This record gives sequence, C-alpha cells and structure tokens, in this order.
Amino acid sequence: MALARVGRNAMRRSGGSIGYSTSERTTFYEGEIPLKCSLSSLANANANGNSWYISSIGKVNHMSFWSRGMRATPHSQYLSVEKIVEESDSENDDSRYPGLGATGPGEKPRVVVLGTGWAACRFLKGLNTKIYDVVCISPRNHMVFTPLLASTCVGTLEFRSVAEPVSRIQSALAASPNSYFYLASCTGIDTDKHEVYCETNGNGSLPNEPYQFKVAYDKLVIGSGAEPLTFGIKGVKEHAFFLREVTHAQEIRKKLLLNLMLSENPGITEEERKRLLHCVVIGGGPTGVEFSGELSDFIMKDVRERYTHVKDYIQVTLIEANEILSSFDVGLRQYATNHLTKSGVRFRRGIVKEVHSKKIVLNDGTDVPYGLLVWSTGVGPSEFVKSINLPKAPGGRIGVDEWLRVPSVEDVFAVGDCAGFLEQTGRPVLPALAQVAEREGKFLVELFNKMGKQNVGKAFSVKDFPMGDPFVYKHLGSMATVGRYKALVDLRQSKDAKGISHAGFVSWLIWRSAYLTRVVSWRNRFYVAVNWATTFVFGRDNSRIG
Amino acid sequence: MALARVGRNAMRRSGGSIGYSTSERTTFYEGEIPLKCSLSSLANANANGNSWYISSIGKVNHMSFWSRGMRATPHSQYLSVEKIVEESDSENDDSRYPGLGATGPGEKPRVVVLGTGWAACRFLKGLNTKIYDVVCISPRNHMVFTPLLASTCVGTLEFRSVAEPVSRIQSALAASPNSYFYLASCTGIDTDKHEVYCETNGNGSLPNEPYQFKVAYDKLVIGSGAEPLTFGIKGVKEHAFFLREVTHAQEIRKKLLLNLMLSENPGITEEERKRLLHCVVIGGGPTGVEFSGELSDFIMKDVRERYTHVKDYIQVTLIEANEILSSFDVGLRQYATNHLTKSGVRFRRGIVKEVHSKKIVLNDGTDVPYGLLVWSTGVGPSEFVKSINLPKAPGGRIGVDEWLRVPSVEDVFAVGDCAGFLEQTGRPVLPALAQVAEREGKFLVELFNKMGKQNVGKAFSVKDFPMGDPFVYKHLGSMATVGRYKALVDLRQSKDAKGISHAGFVSWLIWRSAYLTRVVSWRNRFYVAVNWATTFVFGRDNSRIG
Repeated sequence: MALARVGRNAMRRSGGSIGYSTSERTTFYEGEIPLKCSLSSLANANANGNSWYISSIGKVNHMSFWSRGMRATPHSQYLSVEKIVEESDSENDDSRYPGLGATGPGEKPRVVVLGTGWAACRFLKGLNTKIYDVVCISPRNHMVFTPLLASTCVGTLEFRSVAEPVSRIQSALAASPNSYFYLASCTGIDTDKHEVYCETNGNGSLPNEPYQFKVAYDKLVIGSGAEPLTFGIKGVKEHAFFLREVTHAQEIRKKLLLNLMLSENPGITEEERKRLLHCVVIGGGPTGVEFSGELSDFIMKDVRERYTHVKDYIQVTLIEANEILSSFDVGLRQYATNHLTKSGVRFRRGIVKEVHSKKIVLNDGTDVPYGLLVWSTGVGPSEFVKSINLPKAPGGRIGVDEWLRVPSVEDVFAVGDCAGFLEQTGRPVLPALAQVAEREGKFLVELFNKMGKQNVGKAFSVKDFPMGDPFVYKHLGSMATVGRYKALVDLRQSKDAKGISHAGFVSWLIWRSAYLTRVVSWRNRFYVAVNWATTFVFGRDNSRIG
Repeated sequence: MALARVGRNAMRRSGGSIGYSTSERTTFYEGEIPLKCSLSSLANANANGNSWYISSIGKVNHMSFWSRGMRATPHSQYLSVEKIVEESDSENDDSRYPGLGATGPGEKPRVVVLGTGWAACRFLKGLNTKIYDVVCISPRNHMVFTPLLASTCVGTLEFRSVAEPVSRIQSALAASPNSYFYLASCTGIDTDKHEVYCETNGNGSLPNEPYQFKVAYDKLVIGSGAEPLTFGIKGVKEHAFFLREVTHAQEIRKKLLLNLMLSENPGITEEERKRLLHCVVIGGGPTGVEFSGELSDFIMKDVRERYTHVKDYIQVTLIEANEILSSFDVGLRQYATNHLTKSGVRFRRGIVKEVHSKKIVLNDGTDVPYGLLVWSTGVGPSEFVKSINLPKAPGGRIGVDEWLRVPSVEDVFAVGDCAGFLEQTGRPVLPALAQVAEREGKFLVELFNKMGKQNVGKAFSVKDFPMGDPFVYKHLGSMATVGRYKALVDLRQSKDAKGISHAGFVSWLIWRSAYLTRVVSWRNRFYVAVNWATTFVFGRDNSRIG
C-alpha cells in the first residue's frame, strides 16, 4: 500500500503548476517559477493515473510546504532542475501548519509510524506504550490480511473478515492521550528537523483541502509499502484491477458479477458473451495462481448453479511470461499447472504489450479480448519512496542496514516492502512477502522496546547504544491454494535448498489452519471460520452491492 | 427503489435534446424538433440530479425507442406538448431492438416482474414456475431487508447480512431455461403490444451503452418501488444521504468513520470538530428514530472506547416538523423521546429550507452546521411511475383495483410502494410499509398461481375468470428499536384503535426475534444472529473500506 501515490517533490520540481486546473494553468507564484518546465515532464506526471490527486494540489496555496526538507533522489523522468530546493529553503515558514510539535523533556518519546501494512502493524502491536507515545499515519485505517484477499473476490470470504482496524491492533492509538491515528498520506520528511509532512483529503468535508499538517518525531518507522509494477505498459492503470487492497477485491467482485449479469441480456452476441466472461489474470505468482484457483472454484460451483444460461461461456486464462510459481519446487509447480488445467484454467505464455478497454495486445501481436483483467506482476517502489531523499537499496527501495536503520540520518527506520538492505551490507534485498515484513516489524519493535528501557527513545539520543544481534531472515516456507480443496506447501528455506514440499488436500488443511491462526484478532478468526463454513453449506453470496 | 429515475417520456417531451453534450446541444433530428422547448422545462429535468443518467441519453440514436407506446400521464412541470407522441408513433420500428418476443402457443406464459423489493420478491418467491416462466428486471440483483438497514450503518450488522440475492429467492431465475434476471432499468411500457422497454448501463462493459432491449410479457407485475421525498428542497440530493439501499448505508458508514478520523487531525478547531461530528437526522419516522438509536448506541459504546480524543464532541440531532413516530401510540412516543434524550439525542422542531454542503438552513432562519446528514422524510412516486401512462391513485402512485389489477389495460398489476388503490375503490392508499408490500406480493402470487392453473396465464386470456376475494390489508402492528436494548411494539390495528402497546427490553427481544424469523434465507438469518453476537462480544467493526 502506498502512502503517497505521487511524490510531491517530483511534481513540485517538474513545474509547480501541474496541479492547476485549466483556468489556473498559467498562474505561477513568486519564487515558484520553474527553471525548466518541459512538456514531457508534465506528460510523465499525468501518466501516473492519479489525476484526482494531482488536481487536488491545484488548491494548495503554500507551495513552500512541499519543498521543505525534501531533497529527492533524482529521477530523470521528473527532475529537470536541482536548484529549486535550495531556493525554496529560504521561503520556509512551517509554523503556519498545524501539527504535533517536538516532545518536551518530561514527555514520553514519540514514535511515528507510516503505514498500516504487515510490517507497520506488527510493529504497532508490539510497541510498549508505557514507554512510547505512538502516532500512526496511513491513508487506510486497517490492516489487510493479504493472503486471504483473493478469496474475498468471489465471496468465499467476506471483505471485513480480512480487514483488521488498526485501533484494535494497538489500542493506544484510540485511547492514549498523546497517541493518534491520522488518516492521511505522508508527503515529505525533514530528517534534520525530525518532522513528517502530511495531507488529508476529506472529500469536501474539511474547509481547506487537501488539509496539511506536520508531526514531529523522536523516532520514525517507515512502513509505507510498495506499489504494483506495471512496467510502463499502456492502459494497465486505466483498465486492469490490482489485488492489494480490500477496495480492489470489492471492485473485482462487482465487475465479475456485473459481467455475469450483462452477458445474460437478450441480444448479446456469442462473441460478446465470451468476451464479457473471459477473466484474464496477468502474472503467475502466488496471488495470480490463488486468484485463478478461487475463480475456478466459483465457476465450477456457483456459476454452474446460479448462472446456468451463461455457464458454458466463462473462461479463466492466466498469462505469464515465464513459469508460474517460479519460487516453488518444480514438482509443486507441475502439480499446480495440472490441477488448474483440470479445473478449466488456460495457461498462456506471453508478454503484454498494451491494454485496451476490452482487449489486451500481446507482444507477438495477438489480441486477447477480456471482460475482467486482474494484474498481479509483483510490486516496486512507490512514488513516495522514489521522491524522498534517503539512501536507496538496489531496486529503489529505502536502504537500511542490518538493524533496519536508515544510515546517514538519525532516528529513521524502514521496514517491509518499502525497505531493502543496502548494497554495502552485502545482503540481498528480501522478497516482498508478508512473512518478511512481519518478521522485520517484530525485530524492530523489540529493538525499540529495548532502546526505550535504556532511555534512548528520544530524538538524537542514540549514541553508543549496543544494538545487539542484527536482523536475520529465515524463510519458513511458502504456501498457495489452487482451488478445490488443494494447496501447495513448500517448506524449503530457499529456492535451491532441499526440504519438504507437499501438494494436495493435506496441504490445503495445513494452509487453512496456518492462516486461520495467523489472522490477527479473535473476531476475524471467528468470521473467517464462519465464512468458510457458510460457503461450504450455502455457497457464495452473489448480491452485487454498489 | 426506483427502476427508472427519470421518466424517458418526460425528457423526450421536454425537448428531446436535454441529454446532448455541450457540443451537441443545438442538434435536433428531423421529427424531433420540440414544439415548445422552454428553459424552465430544461431546468426542471436537470434539477432531478440524475445528470449521469441524462447525459447517457445523449448517445441514444434511435429516439423512437423511447416514445413507443409511452403515453405519459401529464405532469405540468415536464410536459409542454401532447402532440409529439402521436407524431412519433409513426416512426416506430421496434424490431431493431433485441429482446424476448411474445411466447408461443406451446410455451409457458411469461410473467415479467419489475423490481426486487418486498412486494416483487414475495411475489417471485411464491410463483409456481411449473406454470410460468418468469423474467425479473431490476437495477439491483438483491432484496434489501430494510428494517435492519439502519443497523448496518454503524456496524451492528454487516451489509451482506441484510441483502438477499434474488436468485436465491426464486431459483428459476438462475436455472430455468426461459426465466431470467436482467440487471436493467425499465424505461417504458407498451400495454397494447404487451412489451416493456429496458436499458442497462454496464459502466463501459458493453459496446453500445446504454444497452437497450425489450421483453414481451403475458402478465406484468410492477413492483418498482418509490423514491425518497425531498419536497423540492434545494441541496438535499447533493448533500444528504438517504437510507433505502445497502449502498446508502455503506456511504453513511464511510462518512461517519471519515468524520471521526478527520476530527482527530491536528489543528482542527473546536468549532470545526463539533461540526464534523454533528450527525443530523431529518425526519422522525421509524427509520429516522431507529437510525438515531443506532447512532447513539455506537457513540456510547464504540466512540467512547475507540475515539477517546474526540468522544465529547459527537452529537446526534433529530429534526422533525411535527411529532416523532406519529403513527405510534402516544405513550410509546413519549417513551421513545425520553429514552433517546437520555441517550444523548437532541430533538428539534423545525422545517428545512435549504441544505448546503456544511450546514442546513431552517425555515426560521437558523443555521445548523453538520458533518453527516441523513434524510428520511418518507417516499413518493418515482420518476418512472410518474412518466408511464397508467391510471393514478391519489398521491401519484399507479392506481389499482381491489385485486391489484391496473384497470383500463390488460394483464398489468402493481404492488408495493409504487401502487395505490384508485379513488373509485373507496379505499385509502396504504402506507409505504414492508408488511403492506409483502402482503400484496403474497396475495398477488396466489392469484397468479390460481390463474395459471385455470389456464388464463397467457396474454389477453383473462375473460370471465372469477377473481375471488379481493385484497384486504390487516395491519399487524408496528415496531421500532430505540437503542440500548429497548424497543417499541405497537399492536394496535390502526392509529385510533385500541390495543396492546409496550416499550422496553421485552419489546426489544420481540423486535429482534420477530425480524430474525422474517429474514428471508437461513444463511442471512444465521449471519444476522452471528453479527449481533459478535457486536455484543467484540463491539462494532470500524475498518473504513473504500
């Protein structure tokens, strides 16, 4: 999940006027005139598909807010000038922005956490709030239990069963006098002043929108996640669905049920019906495979019973450039391919060239008409991560050392999909997996609790603190369900290691039990079990709401 | 629920060019030139707030589709001319539209049902599908268990627990070869040709949108519901939330949780915080009172525990021009007022003059700032009902006789909130209640099954069929919950009759048991019970999804 989908700094630098509405497009403020404003930089910024976000910036009057302390790592496609930052540094007057100031000598140190994903929530859960005050900043107020998200798209599970409110994970956020949860995006960090800059879009609820504020930190934990990779392929952001948030799953469910109903309309041609009911999944990683499995379960049980007029037209195709489930054992891969093929999933090797509203064009020139397109080809650094001036790991993540500290700045830590080991650590960047993120969150919070007890929780107070053992990641194995009560369990520690791997019904039982025990709260554990039971007894709910 | 929010005919008559985009606004087609096109008629049509709907008509090339057979009851605000219909009658060529043609001699008679509300679904549930084929046309594919909808706004119940897929209510719609559910809006009826005209908006999924088709019927049952009354008050449709659909409840929940979070933002003034957390309910009927009760429960339990920073700012105000719960016994009314006042709900007498984005202006000139506004002042005839040329009952509903037949046309019936007894029957128009609608659906389906067995199910075949006893409505009583495990039960048969009435915890148990047994399916009955139990044990879920 991304905290800030468009790096402020990038936009600021690419002209300062991108966000202005048509009527204001030619307005520049004193000191804001871009040194170089090329059409290509405008085009690039708009190509991010975040037009509501960009247009909202049109209302920002105090441009200096954005330029404070944000010295971005250069991105050639956005940045034509390096000079502006230095100029605008002289404009700063942050006092006009409301916020939480630095903590006083008698107060608890304040930890600011960016994000509500696996890493951030594991950190929040374990934080000793007798020692620390905590402020969590994220554009969503819940954690998503991502391994079960694919099941919600077809109604095997309900959406709320996989969403865990952050105030349940760390109750201090709701109840402690100096701890807060802010529904906002972080737009910049001043590591010298120990401040983060935030904005909230209240959909017209607030007088000044986006509403801006700042929060001072003693320690900062960045766990703002990653963004889906689209490889710059035209049309992906406009026409494909990702599968990373509960809202994505809701949209997929709505579209799938809509297409099933539309295809029943009188007068729809055979060809059109086939297109509407062609579900294409791009990417053969665990998410793509699990989603295909859920879809085929839905088709074989629910569509056959409840959409009998069109049941013979629905088809799932999984397109992958290389091999599916490349990190799994070769036997398991073969098992998954056979099992899904038997369930009616078609596999296709191919690379997507362009995405249109009703068809995909592959690199070999063939057209693939589709009704539903789900894009799951992995994740890469978010625009926010790209825009902040912190050391970077290979691949563009925020670079950290063995203790998850961001070097060269004080009191900043990064965890989860947004963080990666720096090259000089000699360690590889870890894969973007829930178990990696969770383990990092756990490691870091233990370190924080230890630091807090040694009274080095305050800003600039860590001098000769013995950090202890560094973070070491030990892979526990991978699991994926492939539908029809079958799953894969691969307990090898790495791709080339030897170890136990198993596929079938027993693996499926292991898969379900393992995830059921991992679900954060008792409430959701109960609901996941109840959803599974009612799906088994009554089938999946197919009300199309919204 | 409305099938067609803007009567096609009305727009057609008010100029034929309303729907065209700016660039096309001056384009008129031959035969389409309005005889009289006043600015006021344009303004009226646009005031309906259905701009997406209106603009979609801009794409319709075959205007004759809309004018076929739709001889509208005059509505002075739309209609300046009566002549056009006669002219356009000569243009018709319906064969170009796909659809289901009239049933053949060897086929079962086809019943077309418009709507998926209480009346339509009760009818569908009971229909003997060995005798009839059935086609249901509605813009939503589920029935809403409306008495429990208010509980979903604050998370006491989940959304899907109160939505029942129509294919579960009548499985023939999903499984029978000649029965269908179409996700579409009915836009017109040709009672002579026994055809209904429909359109579907597939959000870009279909090649021609809105996609138009027609369905021939042997018998037609109109159960398309009503629309919220706004009394033409400026700003209601733009800024207030209604509470009639699951999507409405979702929007209310999202807004409430958003405002709670926004009000925690640093720097929000006391005044702004009070405004954001001021929940105003307009209308003191059962829906308004039950929603206020749910809100106060949510505040007293969940907000106090989980939004401690802002808990003292939240406030519920119920504004009503007359008395709350006017149909209830005076003792119960007093009980409700006292109970809700103790729970922190403020009552205010007043009439709304205007609604702005952040405040209401009352008739006495006072401003009422609000953060959430829920409008629940009863329902009136929909634009679709207004636009069709059928006899009307007092108040504008479709007029029916004692057997729920629409006189002057053959094979057309109307049930639920869209239907009312004609003046000449000497009976009063029944209130817009679930129990009225359900009873009408039940009566009508029994009549249909009887007709089917006597072989008068086909079009134009009812000649001397003995209709039997007419429909008689016997009121069983009213119930309303007021929060904190208290409810009102009024078992009097009418407002002035004598009978048992009770308020308190026992009534609340009766209320819960009665509704639990009324929930349509076992699946949802189970989920309602589970939701109630988990709310009791864990509190309400406050993830803000979407």
